[in-house]
Amino acid sequence: MQNYLVYISYDGTNYAGYQLQKNAVTVAGKLIEALSAVFGTFSSFHGCSRTDSGVHAREFAFSFKSEKILEEISVVKALNFNLPDDISVRRCEYVSDNFHARYDVVRKEYIYFLYTGKTRDPFLKNYSFFINRDLDIDKMNRAAQSLVGTHDFSAFCASGGKIEDKTRTIYSAFFEKQEELIVFRICGNGFLYKMVRLIVGTLIYVSDGKIDEDKITEMLESKILTPGFAAPSRGLFLNKVYYEN
Amino acid sequence: MQNYLVYISYDGTNYAGYQLQKNAVTVAGKLIEALSAVFGTFSSFHGCSRTDSGVHAREFAFSFKSEKILEEISVVKALNFNLPDDISVRRCEYVSDNFHARYDVVRKEYIYFLYTGKTRDPFLKNYSFFINRDLDIDKMNRAAQSLVGTHDFSAFCASGGKIEDKTRTIYSAFFEKQEELIVFRICGNGFLYKMVRLIVGTLIYVSDGKIDEDKITEMLESKILTPGFAAPSRGLFLNKVYYEN
Repeated sequence: MQNYLVYISYDGTNYAGYQLQKNAVTVAGKLIEALSAVFGTFSSFHGCSRTDSGVHAREFAFSFKSEKILEEISVVKALNFNLPDDISVRRCEYVSDNFHARYDVVRKEYIYFLYTGKTRDPFLKNYSFFINRDLDIDKMNRAAQSLVGTHDFSAFCASGGKIEDKTRTIYSAFFEKQEELIVFRICGNGFLYKMVRLIVGTLIYVSDGKIDEDKITEMLESKILTPGFAAPSRGLFLNKVYYEN
Repeated sequence: MQNYLVYISYDGTNYAGYQLQKNAVTVAGKLIEALSAVFGTFSSFHGCSRTDSGVHAREFAFSFKSEKILEEISVVKALNFNLPDDISVRRCEYVSDNFHARYDVVRKEYIYFLYTGKTRDPFLKNYSFFINRDLDIDKMNRAAQSLVGTHDFSAFCASGGKIEDKTRTIYSAFFEKQEELIVFRICGNGFLYKMVRLIVGTLIYVSDGKIDEDKITEMLESKILTPGFAAPSRGLFLNKVYYEN
């Protein structure tokens, strides 16, 4: 029995999210079809995360076990042959039997793209949130610093999740201007349901003056879901998944 | 009667090209629908160029005349409201009565993206030609220099065009590596049917050693269509259109 770790990228535009669903096309559904075609039977299939409908992944990882032994490069080629072209296997590694793609994640980075051009950009329509006004990046960055560290993030967790412990550690969170794009990068040991999108939505409210920049700490301490808004999923990318080694 | 010049961007993925066709969805068809909705009647509708099915435009220009006078910014907003989100109006200018969006072009720049990653990139699938091997950029750049200048480009013109005079001037043509992307930029006073795609295809053959790098001049002089191949339309972007002022 070999435990495989596979890294993929996917364009989430045409998927009802990562997680398997009965009557919807999902990334996990496509992966299971491809794994069945290549490996026949397999077990212990685990994704590193559960991205929402429309959310993208530049890097996403999953693991699975099979009796069938294929070289890493053959796994890449065979799975790609069996996947639609909006999902791509980038690399594959053999991992130890007790490795788990979800529980063994030590750090993840998400990126969110805000497009501040005067008119919409057809090439960014599925990959950014079009917000045709200037944002106060300095103000948003000051507010974002309140999120860094270990906190209970209940205030930035949409209902629907089943997780009890909502304490997470954020290592970094900042906005950076790249011409007409504003790129938000957030790195942490874990993220709650819609957490990044709620954070981005709240920080846009901070820029707009609807929420005071000093209010973030108070919001965290309240442990009550922010009455803000979740930025749309199309601007969000899981960018990197880190394991112990 | 006001003559308007409008600059747009479009993602060509879902269009059967720019030019109006009876039983196909085209960019010009969408523009005519939007112009009808906003201006009612209009005349002298001219695009700067005719891009093929699947070809994109970061900048494309068209002109039209109407009795209805709208402010430039209102034209942008009203047309965008009436266009699908893969076509975007970026700006509008009033132009003199004798201005013609096609005949008055003095220079155009096209860009072609080649993706040389080891595995396909889902975010580039509609915007690049995936060629999973290294290309010899220096060799391609030397060969590309033979194209610069004023030449009869019959050897790089697909049949089907109706244009008699196939002499064009190319001001610059070069490849540049940007991580796993190779970007080809070509600037000239005009381009023939499939000319850029035939040039890119031929230069890939040069990199692969299928065509000698010194052969380009000979090919131009032969005035016979290259027995190479046209690189796929999805990698091609009309990037910039230049008028006299």
